[in-house]
Amino acid sequence: MGLKVAVVGCGALGGFYGARLAQRGLQVHFLLRSDYETVCRQGLAISSVDGDFRVRPQCARQPEEIGRCDLVLIGLKTTANYQFPRLLPPLVDERTLVMTLQNGLGNEEQLAALFGPDNILGGLCFVCLNRVRPGLIRHLAHGRVVMGEFQRPVLPRTRAVAELFRQSGTPCETTDDLARAHWEKLVWNVPFNGLGVAAAAGYEAVVSGRWTAGAPLGACLPTDALLADPRWRELVIELMREVIGAANQLGHKIPAACADENLERTRNMGAYRASTLVDFERGQPLELDSLFREPLRQAKAAGFATPRLAALIEILQRISPQG
Amino acid sequence: MGLKVAVVGCGALGGFYGARLAQRGLQVHFLLRSDYETVCRQGLAISSVDGDFRVRPQCARQPEEIGRCDLVLIGLKTTANYQFPRLLPPLVDERTLVMTLQNGLGNEEQLAALFGPDNILGGLCFVCLNRVRPGLIRHLAHGRVVMGEFQRPVLPRTRAVAELFRQSGTPCETTDDLARAHWEKLVWNVPFNGLGVAAAAGYEAVVSGRWTAGAPLGACLPTDALLADPRWRELVIELMREVIGAANQLGHKIPAACADENLERTRNMGAYRASTLVDFERGQPLELDSLFREPLRQAKAAGFATPRLAALIEILQRISPQG
Repeated sequence: MGLKVAVVGCGALGGFYGARLAQRGLQVHFLLRSDYETVCRQGLAISSVDGDFRVRPQCARQPEEIGRCDLVLIGLKTTANYQFPRLLPPLVDERTLVMTLQNGLGNEEQLAALFGPDNILGGLCFVCLNRVRPGLIRHLAHGRVVMGEFQRPVLPRTRAVAELFRQSGTPCETTDDLARAHWEKLVWNVPFNGLGVAAAAGYEAVVSGRWTAGAPLGACLPTDALLADPRWRELVIELMREVIGAANQLGHKIPAACADENLERTRNMGAYRASTLVDFERGQPLELDSLFREPLRQAKAAGFATPRLAALIEILQRISPQG
Repeated sequence: MGLKVAVVGCGALGGFYGARLAQRGLQVHFLLRSDYETVCRQGLAISSVDGDFRVRPQCARQPEEIGRCDLVLIGLKTTANYQFPRLLPPLVDERTLVMTLQNGLGNEEQLAALFGPDNILGGLCFVCLNRVRPGLIRHLAHGRVVMGEFQRPVLPRTRAVAELFRQSGTPCETTDDLARAHWEKLVWNVPFNGLGVAAAAGYEAVVSGRWTAGAPLGACLPTDALLADPRWRELVIELMREVIGAANQLGHKIPAACADENLERTRNMGAYRASTLVDFERGQPLELDSLFREPLRQAKAAGFATPRLAALIEILQRISPQG
């Protein structure tokens, strides 16, 4: 029997990486809800800059149909983490590796609370994806994954899983410091996922942290628009500095130059719409907890002030569909 | 950094599987002695029924040049196991997976005595290989590997490593009962490795367990010759029954039909010369401990009589170069 993999949350993220592993011949089970009929019938198609392909994975509606796995990949939106206790236990025994591919902070901790800390991993995904429709995912750019163990250095198993990702065509590295890697990724996510949506409330609202309920909303701003306007660009940089400052206060040692590197990298992305913008425009709840509130909470707990982040969260939670 | 692999004992076995992993892009370090110059200069060539290939692995003469690894594959002859304490510690830390690909019983135990039992694995190799000359290995047939954890069921890491072997072109399964798998393989190895060599002392000697030192030696018998002569064939079957009986006494539940299956499988091998015959004809020490003495010791300890095996060992140790 080969390595048995389950993908929970087969949106763009889980679907894409799960499909790559399935294409390389791994035994991958997809836990599906709305896309079940379509993927059962016609498989999962990936329209990718690296070449299109289609897989016919094993599909399930309930985790009990899949049973215990060696590796569970979690691609759910973090707004659906409340479903962990229902979805995951049938897939997990005391040996199962549980890897969250999700955005932001706190996901590994929620998994550790359910299953203990020993077999929890995190994978940070640097990838531009869209779910076009049921059964079709578009891969626009990038794809790199950085993997690590929860609260401890890399083990041989971590590198073995990373090799399997690589063998399936995904550039994949491992990190001995998953927490630091999360903060490093937030240097990009906080400004571009956050400001991109908050921009709909207008610059004054974002700067002041005040917004009148019911006021008309403008447009979200993709990455290039945020960088083109000096006022927004300044906010991007200030937020990056706050995130870097908080990370360093927490002991994560992220150099100040990380801000410039992210700006440079983002210039090459064109008009990219971060996942939060897509969620917002589709009227779906935003990943406020993992991307914004948990970083703020940790910064506060470490005694580091992040006023721009605090104001951003005020606006995001007012304009988000969750209310 | 990818999965860092060391191959210790780069004869036919270690060289073949290490080369396959290296060919798939894994970071494989070969610890070499006599073949160092050749492999450094021209790489390692595999002339295989599945297609020829050549790799240029990282070569080292001393384990210190390689340093700590994620996975150490051991392909040494078991007659060289006394070198474990010198060769292995520089490659192993508290996380390193140490997998013996060697023949017979007792190898995992020797590794566990050095490094503790938690990260020891065994891989049983069903493959026909010859080392033709330094830097050239001939792969004649088969290749399957059965992997397991020492003294416990398969873990996700076991399946992940097995997947990497598969991705490199090696059919690979995992077993929850490595000890049983070893005994199952001995059902073949004991008669064909043992009788094939002992035949040089003559039928009467093998049956009686008595041989006069200095008496002239005849030829070894490859698999087809052992099966073609009814007297030898009967001894093959009796030895198989002893091994199966001992295994069952030890609780390993090997069905009696295993003997017939092995006979059938061997008929398809043609005139195959098991590794012990090659060792004997080259004047090298035989793997008496792992293939014969340790099985006998375990059978005795379980109170199961194996007179054919005992007589076989008497002859083998008298005619073997070790004396």
